[in-house]
Amino acid sequence: MLGAIEAGGTKFVCAVSENGRDIKERVSIPTTTPAETMQQVYDFFRSFSIEAVGIGSFGPIDINTKNDTYGYITTTPKTAWQNFNILGDVQKHLGVPAGFTTDVNAAALGEWKHGAGAGKTSCLYMTVGTGIGVGAVINNHILEGLNHPEAGHIIVRRHPEDDFKGTCPYHSDCLEGLASGPAVEKRWGEKGSELTARPEVWELESYYLAQAMMNYILILTPERIIIGGGVSKQPSLLAKVHEKTQQLLQGYVQDSMITQHIDQYITTPGLYDDAGITGGFVLAARTLEDTPN
Amino acid sequence: MLGAIEAGGTKFVCAVSENGRDIKERVSIPTTTPAETMQQVYDFFRSFSIEAVGIGSFGPIDINTKNDTYGYITTTPKTAWQNFNILGDVQKHLGVPAGFTTDVNAAALGEWKHGAGAGKTSCLYMTVGTGIGVGAVINNHILEGLNHPEAGHIIVRRHPEDDFKGTCPYHSDCLEGLASGPAVEKRWGEKGSELTARPEVWELESYYLAQAMMNYILILTPERIIIGGGVSKQPSLLAKVHEKTQQLLQGYVQDSMITQHIDQYITTPGLYDDAGITGGFVLAARTLEDTPN
Ligand SMILES: Nc1ncnc2c1ncn2[C@@H]1O[C@H](COP(=O)(O)OP(=O)(O)O)[C@@H](O)[C@H]1O
Ligand SMILES: Nc1ncnc2c1ncn2[C@@H]1O[C@H](COP(=O)(O)OP(=O)(O)O)[C@@H](O)[C@H]1O
Ligand SMILES: [Zn+2]
Ligand SMILES: [Zn+2]
Repeated sequence: MLGAIEAGGTKFVCAVSENGRDIKERVSIPTTTPAETMQQVYDFFRSFSIEAVGIGSFGPIDINTKNDTYGYITTTPKTAWQNFNILGDVQKHLGVPAGFTTDVNAAALGEWKHGAGAGKTSCLYMTVGTGIGVGAVINNHILEGLNHPEAGHIIVRRHPEDDFKGTCPYHSDCLEGLASGPAVEKRWGEKGSELTARPEVWELESYYLAQAMMNYILILTPERIIIGGGVSKQPSLLAKVHEKTQQLLQGYVQDSMITQHIDQYITTPGLYDDAGITGGFVLAARTLEDTPN
Repeated sequence: MLGAIEAGGTKFVCAVSENGRDIKERVSIPTTTPAETMQQVYDFFRSFSIEAVGIGSFGPIDINTKNDTYGYITTTPKTAWQNFNILGDVQKHLGVPAGFTTDVNAAALGEWKHGAGAGKTSCLYMTVGTGIGVGAVINNHILEGLNHPEAGHIIVRRHPEDDFKGTCPYHSDCLEGLASGPAVEKRWGEKGSELTARPEVWELESYYLAQAMMNYILILTPERIIIGGGVSKQPSLLAKVHEKTQQLLQGYVQDSMITQHIDQYITTPGLYDDAGITGGFVLAARTLEDTPN
């Protein structure tokens, strides 16, 4: 049996699976303090005999095994969780091999193995919600290097008529600062879900997201791009992103997936809200394989 | 013995190596027509008994093995080379296993194995010259997905006082359109090498290159970034890129390589002009390993 932990800023989802894909049982635990939340996590897993666990965590986290703070949640605004060694804590309490990555890398891994990226060697997963997060699988492996991607914070060109100053505490008007759910709400004075009837909102939103698509395609060249998160539920948004991405690329990337089938190339998640948990199982299975016995 | 071909738009460099690193003999051949140039390539290799060859080619090229045009130089402005099956031609004439990638991916591979990226699991190589090209090694493998990176064409934010319209035939004012060697020359009316005494030129150039650094770091998160090409020879440029990249990131990526050692993190090539050829040898060796005998 394999375990998965989706460690989110509002809730932790824990689940177990026999076959590494289907969820046998799951629980949702509010994110309060590490002591309180983790206790409930361990209580859940106690009923099962899991062989390994995969953790996809909110961040920023340190996934560079060379660092002293490897396995930590680092500079999060959630003060109770700052510098919490989540990986070490899980290993100590569950006593099984544990894989560790970001929430969006876990979602990318899940979608790549069993969702909209199945059969590809690479895929990029983007969530446009409270923040903008990006994870990726490249050459069948999670994308990690110096650290994990933070591609929600890239620079995009501002729309000449958009004078909203942006919401990112670090960069003000990076992509996340201009196009996350809270940015939409603050700019237009209403929650995104209430703005469906205002096409100018989604014109502008797709203006920014299409630039992100262009840069992700040119830099990472993934075989599939998957967009999830609350804002992506806006019905007219994806088609506008398709159209604007093609316009920006100007036929430069001569692949029929982009020139003709962009609606299949940039797509919604195949696993919906289960992407992260499924990715956790995949990570758990890989960690088990890589553990010398 | 291993062979390497660096197929450039002005010249082809061919070389052989006993140990996959040191160049035993090399030749430089002008890029005219495929028939003429390739004949001289084959004449050079005839004197050696090579077991495999690695090709780093100018592009755009098709490196997606699923495509019918895999191994081709595709939509290049050099009309004689359009839709030339360079990989197939080499395989036919040399009769040995051949690896195929872009010129900049080959340079990235060479720098990663034996140059400024040695000992890392990932590195990004950027050339700022006649064009802006980017190659990368991720998880010890060349970055390939839908196709190869074209990260010279990303969108950057224009400087508010820069009204130069840009030189890219596809996107006008993408990064390459604003910051390649020809863009510098056209904007300021003189070749880059003549503009050393004008700090405003390099202020603006680093304004654009630092944005590229930011986006590459946030999207690809490489362990090392190497900048080569003619424009990078400008003495004051790299330090300005370091400074501006740190300013843009605003401490968001909390790794000492960026916050304290950015001069080591974004660096000049270790192999200088031999990066591509060295990468060709590495590619040849890998291709040989992967070939069932
Ligand atoms: N239908 C919708 N259209 C536009 N925005 C929405 C919609 N539904 C939710 N959102 C926005 O998405 C954000 C929440 O994203 P979500 O992915 O659900 O959560 P989180 O990112 O915290 O995991 C909020 O800012 C919310 O206003
Ligand atoms: N010292 C220099 N400072 C600035 N620009 C330079 C310098 N030397 C060469 N360049 C510019 O670099 C470009 C050529 O780049 P290079 O990398 O040598 O060739 P290519 O990209 O064709 O392989 C030209 O536009 C040239 O003006
Ligand atoms: Zn930001
Ligand atoms: Zn361009």
